[in-house]
Amino acid sequence: MSNMSIGGKARHESIVDEVSSWLTRSADEVDHLLATDRRRIVAAIEELNNDARLGDANAYYRQQLLLSRIYQTTMQISYEPTAEGSALLHEVTRLLEVAMIASEDRWIEPGTLESAPTVPAEYLSWLKRLARNHRAFKHPYYTEFINRRAQREDLRTYVIQESLVDGRFDDFLALMQVGTSGPAKMEIANNFWDEMGNGNPESVHTHLFSKIYEVFDVRQEELEDALSASDLLSGNLAVLLCRYRHMYPESVGYLGMTEWLAPDRFRNVIRAWERLGLPDVGITYHRLHVTVDSQHAAGWFHNVVLPAARSDYMRRGIARGALWRVNSSSRHLDERLANTRFAAERSA
Amino acid sequence: MSNMSIGGKARHESIVDEVSSWLTRSADEVDHLLATDRRRIVAAIEELNNDARLGDANAYYRQQLLLSRIYQTTMQISYEPTAEGSALLHEVTRLLEVAMIASEDRWIEPGTLESAPTVPAEYLSWLKRLARNHRAFKHPYYTEFINRRAQREDLRTYVIQESLVDGRFDDFLALMQVGTSGPAKMEIANNFWDEMGNGNPESVHTHLFSKIYEVFDVRQEELEDALSASDLLSGNLAVLLCRYRHMYPESVGYLGMTEWLAPDRFRNVIRAWERLGLPDVGITYHRLHVTVDSQHAAGWFHNVVLPAARSDYMRRGIARGALWRVNSSSRHLDERLANTRFAAERSA
Repeated sequence: MSNMSIGGKARHESIVDEVSSWLTRSADEVDHLLATDRRRIVAAIEELNNDARLGDANAYYRQQLLLSRIYQTTMQISYEPTAEGSALLHEVTRLLEVAMIASEDRWIEPGTLESAPTVPAEYLSWLKRLARNHRAFKHPYYTEFINRRAQREDLRTYVIQESLVDGRFDDFLALMQVGTSGPAKMEIANNFWDEMGNGNPESVHTHLFSKIYEVFDVRQEELEDALSASDLLSGNLAVLLCRYRHMYPESVGYLGMTEWLAPDRFRNVIRAWERLGLPDVGITYHRLHVTVDSQHAAGWFHNVVLPAARSDYMRRGIARGALWRVNSSSRHLDERLANTRFAAERSA
Repeated sequence: MSNMSIGGKARHESIVDEVSSWLTRSADEVDHLLATDRRRIVAAIEELNNDARLGDANAYYRQQLLLSRIYQTTMQISYEPTAEGSALLHEVTRLLEVAMIASEDRWIEPGTLESAPTVPAEYLSWLKRLARNHRAFKHPYYTEFINRRAQREDLRTYVIQESLVDGRFDDFLALMQVGTSGPAKMEIANNFWDEMGNGNPESVHTHLFSKIYEVFDVRQEELEDALSASDLLSGNLAVLLCRYRHMYPESVGYLGMTEWLAPDRFRNVIRAWERLGLPDVGITYHRLHVTVDSQHAAGWFHNVVLPAARSDYMRRGIARGALWRVNSSSRHLDERLANTRFAAERSA
């Protein structure tokens, strides 16, 4: 590591700490900084983004950590003022978002989006084929590691790593359906209502998920430190796509692909759960998703993707979001697999 | 009108047109303006806000019109790029929001928020009493004008004026429930699911509302021109409160009060509908709300307000949001009443 990047690391930590410290101040208070500190802050964030782009792992981690903290202020209820809404905070957020978008776009094979068929039914088949042939589809992290090898501690790690998506899937759906209408709106709303246990508090998915946390004695305080850049990214991408109406097509692709991949993945989790004799709540939660998510994926393709696929803009965005999901998921699972004892044993 | 304000009017129209013209460009494109034009734009918006604050009716209208247009980009699905997410657009939005917040706060009688009881049950009684004694509670616009006098054309105007709230109430609920949990989340989700006709497409409230539009042959294109500053404000306030997590308490007060006031108001609308022999769909829609909203208001108070009312921060925010609603609603209805032929006849 060169001296420059050591200096870079300290600067990255310092700007992330600085912006994080705003989050519990009011937006008005933060915006009084604008006049004097704006340039310096923007420059520091641009440096962070630039270093992340050039492959600096620490910069990438800090970038995703900061975005994840900022997004928490937009996804959690606070009992005291937050900087949410601040113009300066939004400018920082936007720089991080634009960098993340550009980074995900670079992972898409050039020409892929352009090769999509224009007829909706053909487009849908093409999209499914793309996903079925992707490494993310039956990833060895699930089919081998989780299925056959994972121990109790590995499943504990797994549920922590999934927290930024599974722990708030209902809110992603609520956000992404804003502004939709007709069958698409009903499909997403139905999906949301399933997440809400169809009105039965004991069956609310996030409630079941929190019960799994109790099984493993996972505390909120330990979450942030336990998450890698890839864990953070997968939550950040979902928030990004659901919070903006102009990213509705990408959210359709991203969340649709997430639900489509879930049943097969969760079957492996259920087998691990049974193999290890862990408490039933984990089986209940994952089995629910195996049944319900297969129906949702089918409904999603029929009621959300197909009607939208008449528009060029929508087709491109849906495919882009779906590719962001499978690409980031397979990088994520490769990384997880490389970090398991299973991998350590194999390479020993 | 002084020369200064004639110049002001032209400048206000010009900045509103300019920012409106960004909305159909991409955020990245708009943000390239930042470096060179930011100061001029910020100054123009500040002038607009300042003139609105000093009582310039045109500036106030332009301010609310611009905010309403910006909010549309955050509440509607677009089939082409929009400027949503742009740092400069957010800075403009924030200036408009801060001005609107300050303006609503000035309508609250000093000392009111401070006089709220701290015990949750007493707080709730205090809040209801405040609303029951408020001019908005049984406003003559509903009890006299709509009930006894309104003609077909008046009801047409009425549904247009309600479009920015009734036409997207489901989305307000979806947004405001983000980050909640337990009974509060279930209460809001239940409410959302009722708006969605409990899964029956024909009973979706926004669908019924759009059927009412068909009765009166109301077109989307005529909406914007038909809306007054007060009509726009009532929609803008709802969007503001639902889009920010730190305004969750205010949204609880604002939407809770909206639902609490609805049944009595809608009974007057139903009487007008019956008196005029208008098509049944309007009766269906409003009758649904009379029944369902009374239940919702009760559930809202019990499951959303009471548990939150243990916190100082929440109590203050909920009361503030409720007061914003009753205050802005009574100004709004006073204005509507003054504009009716009924008022013209009385003063003649």
